[in-house]
Amino acid sequence: MSKPLCIIVGFGEGLGRALAAKFASCGFDLALISRSKKNSAAAADAVVTATVASRVRLFCADVTRPETLESTIATIAQEMGEIDLLIYNVRGNFTACEPLDMSYDALENVYREEVVGAFAAAKAVLPGMITRSRGSVFFSSATAAFRGSSTHPLYAIGKFGLRALSQSLSKAYAKHGIHIVHFRLDCDLDTPIMHELYGQDYDPGKLANPDDVAESYWLTYQQPRSAWSNEVELRPYTEGWTC
Amino acid sequence: MSKPLCIIVGFGEGLGRALAAKFASCGFDLALISRSKKNSAAAADAVVTATVASRVRLFCADVTRPETLESTIATIAQEMGEIDLLIYNVRGNFTACEPLDMSYDALENVYREEVVGAFAAAKAVLPGMITRSRGSVFFSSATAAFRGSSTHPLYAIGKFGLRALSQSLSKAYAKHGIHIVHFRLDCDLDTPIMHELYGQDYDPGKLANPDDVAESYWLTYQQPRSAWSNEVELRPYTEGWTC
Amino acid sequence: MSKPLCIIVGFGEGLGRALAAKFASCGFDLALISRSKKNSAAAADAVVTATVASRVRLFCADVTRPETLESTIATIAQEMGEIDLLIYNVRGNFTACEPLDMSYDALENVYREEVVGAFAAAKAVLPGMITRSRGSVFFSSATAAFRGSSTHPLYAIGKFGLRALSQSLSKAYAKHGIHIVHFRLDCDLDTPIMHELYGQDYDPGKLANPDDVAESYWLTYQQPRSAWSNEVELRPYTEGWTC
Amino acid sequence: MSKPLCIIVGFGEGLGRALAAKFASCGFDLALISRSKKNSAAAADAVVTATVASRVRLFCADVTRPETLESTIATIAQEMGEIDLLIYNVRGNFTACEPLDMSYDALENVYREEVVGAFAAAKAVLPGMITRSRGSVFFSSATAAFRGSSTHPLYAIGKFGLRALSQSLSKAYAKHGIHIVHFRLDCDLDTPIMHELYGQDYDPGKLANPDDVAESYWLTYQQPRSAWSNEVELRPYTEGWTC
Repeated sequence: MSKPLCIIVGFGEGLGRALAAKFASCGFDLALISRSKKNSAAAADAVVTATVASRVRLFCADVTRPETLESTIATIAQEMGEIDLLIYNVRGNFTACEPLDMSYDALENVYREEVVGAFAAAKAVLPGMITRSRGSVFFSSATAAFRGSSTHPLYAIGKFGLRALSQSLSKAYAKHGIHIVHFRLDCDLDTPIMHELYGQDYDPGKLANPDDVAESYWLTYQQPRSAWSNEVELRPYTEGWTC
Repeated sequence: MSKPLCIIVGFGEGLGRALAAKFASCGFDLALISRSKKNSAAAADAVVTATVASRVRLFCADVTRPETLESTIATIAQEMGEIDLLIYNVRGNFTACEPLDMSYDALENVYREEVVGAFAAAKAVLPGMITRSRGSVFFSSATAAFRGSSTHPLYAIGKFGLRALSQSLSKAYAKHGIHIVHFRLDCDLDTPIMHELYGQDYDPGKLANPDDVAESYWLTYQQPRSAWSNEVELRPYTEGWTC
Repeated sequence: MSKPLCIIVGFGEGLGRALAAKFASCGFDLALISRSKKNSAAAADAVVTATVASRVRLFCADVTRPETLESTIATIAQEMGEIDLLIYNVRGNFTACEPLDMSYDALENVYREEVVGAFAAAKAVLPGMITRSRGSVFFSSATAAFRGSSTHPLYAIGKFGLRALSQSLSKAYAKHGIHIVHFRLDCDLDTPIMHELYGQDYDPGKLANPDDVAESYWLTYQQPRSAWSNEVELRPYTEGWTC
Repeated sequence: MSKPLCIIVGFGEGLGRALAAKFASCGFDLALISRSKKNSAAAADAVVTATVASRVRLFCADVTRPETLESTIATIAQEMGEIDLLIYNVRGNFTACEPLDMSYDALENVYREEVVGAFAAAKAVLPGMITRSRGSVFFSSATAAFRGSSTHPLYAIGKFGLRALSQSLSKAYAKHGIHIVHFRLDCDLDTPIMHELYGQDYDPGKLANPDDVAESYWLTYQQPRSAWSNEVELRPYTEGWTC
């Protein structure tokens, strides 16, 4: 009998790898989509090694080209079967800039990464899920979806839009049995990039462990449909959260 | 080796029974506190029968008398051991009335049930949990914690206060390893009382199944501490939610 | 022709004085209620001197005794006439303590000050306002109404409850032409007490000027009824707000 | 001595006309920008007639072309002088569609109208305002900025983004004395289009009167800078609001 299939859009080091490892270990086949195989091959190797029983395949697509993303997912469905879970795990540009320094191109680009690409991915899987009256669509997001920022306005604008999309999809399609969730990560992740960024201030106790975040995604996946969360916040126990 | 111990304050038909059954089936001993044994004995019998391997004990306390609740929990700790999980599952008065018809007594009472009692229960278990650097405190709440009501103002006032308490405790004690969660039930529960209340309009598909809600509590309990939720919303897939 | 009448509950140095001065200067008679005349006489003198054309009267009531507050307001209505505007400007205990150090008495007391007293005041004026299809009820609140606190949990619990009350009243009675507003002061006020508290760090540019806050209350009072705000946030331009 | 200058982007029947009339009556010169003069000439005539003492000039620009909007505003500054108040009053596409029926073009377009255009307008006026340490930037928005929609997802996605932009600008530039406000209209407006849309159900008592909304904008404009609102909600007294 075939395994359930999980697509992760935005696969690489960090949370993408952890999600892949978690869902593979829980019996999913995986289709992993990243911009280029170069960035993700090493991470995928680690996942493949750990999960001999699962099919794990790598695909390439540029999320800022929604038709391409749609057709990549159509190919996956054709070659690997029905999709049970889509995780849109793309993080738009996180470069700091003050609002007046945003370029129109950067504004357009963050929207394509965070909102249009997320919609394209959802659009590619939802009709099938609705037909089968089951399926899950998870969006990786952040506290930036809840408040503007004087230093990272692009990220906030993108994540606000992603949250609006997630809510809209949920309100329209939950009744067909589709579990749509906006995950608000209220913390930095303990990834190689963050380790480097923090330098001497690096303290893993202050960061969310990607494997733990993946575990909480998995727990959310198991929620029975009469007791679903549609917006999930995740933060480490050390986080002094504000709202 | 002893089992982990779960206290449920506010035990009876409905969610209390479902939580007891769930956590017993997951290997917990149970201390169940209700106002009178009369109301809860039948439900407890069902739980006990289903969970021969667990210790299940019934206690009585009036949550509107905080010192009494504290001392009841102290007795439980003495007789049954360290408390791993406290679930405060009390629902204050839900009688409809317009705001101007609230009596001062009703205002005081809903606060004692929803806030002071919840604090008393937390106060009875937190110092031990802090010493052991682990433990979970769960508060059953509702969407009423997020918006006022022209028809159920007492319930909203109580639940707003409960949410403030839950956030305050979490911000103060999460760093000691204590997982404090406010559960917002965004729906009516499919309980005998609701069945009767809805009458001919009763449609289980529109309600949250208590066993499913208990399952989502259990999933939340399993979140690893670097990826915790402190506010969890739960609603059935059929719920057209607004905020 | 008689002037409109404004009651301010919680009158003293700081915002109470500023509100009194502002509304007197805009043509209101004033009934000022404080716990003791001692605390408020000096402030009232200043207001009286500035507003010779208005009637300004001082009353005493303990807001934690709701029937007393109700009867005081009934007396005011009898002696001074119809009430156009009620401002409930009481601030509950702001002493810092960690959540586990809250006493049951302190929990009860903050609720009486912030919620029960506010309700008593509203209850004393709303029936008359509903009969006349006009009137305004303003509650002075704070950002504490929006998030719990590890250091000031009592204040948060009180202000959450006040917000629930304000929303409930508004949803029930706005349709009768009553303008009910929750003012969230997202800042410290530049008052003598704060000046002293900040000591060498005192910087008026970082604080909200009470006269400016009173001006913004007055502007809100003037909103036409087809374009009302029910929750108003106020912060100084120097405030780096979070949510 | 010259009058203060107000730019309204998105001028036509409805709120645009009401805002123009209000600010002209309060002593402002006006620069009114709409997509085509055809749509706005009649409305402008009405404003001009009512405000002989003010300069009122009409300009054309397509807000979905941000450089064009920027250069139009630069022209206005050159020809009419320093800008005191910018009101971005554009409403993106409000056509109903379910989320899966959104086209990529519609997604791009609503973002250009609601977010990129709003940023272009702000970018054209903020540097001058910052230099002078004064100025106001007002964004007309809606409750759609606070929750997704199963029926109007495009509108929600656009307004969420606009709110993120407004918060980000405010957090970055309020400290320079610039008052940036997101106006959430929590109601339909009583405009000719709505009158027609509602047909026999038309009830002006249920709608916000545009002149009243304009009045509340004007009251907000007068807030002193130590007691500013950055997010203003406006609803008619008849509105049974939810959040």
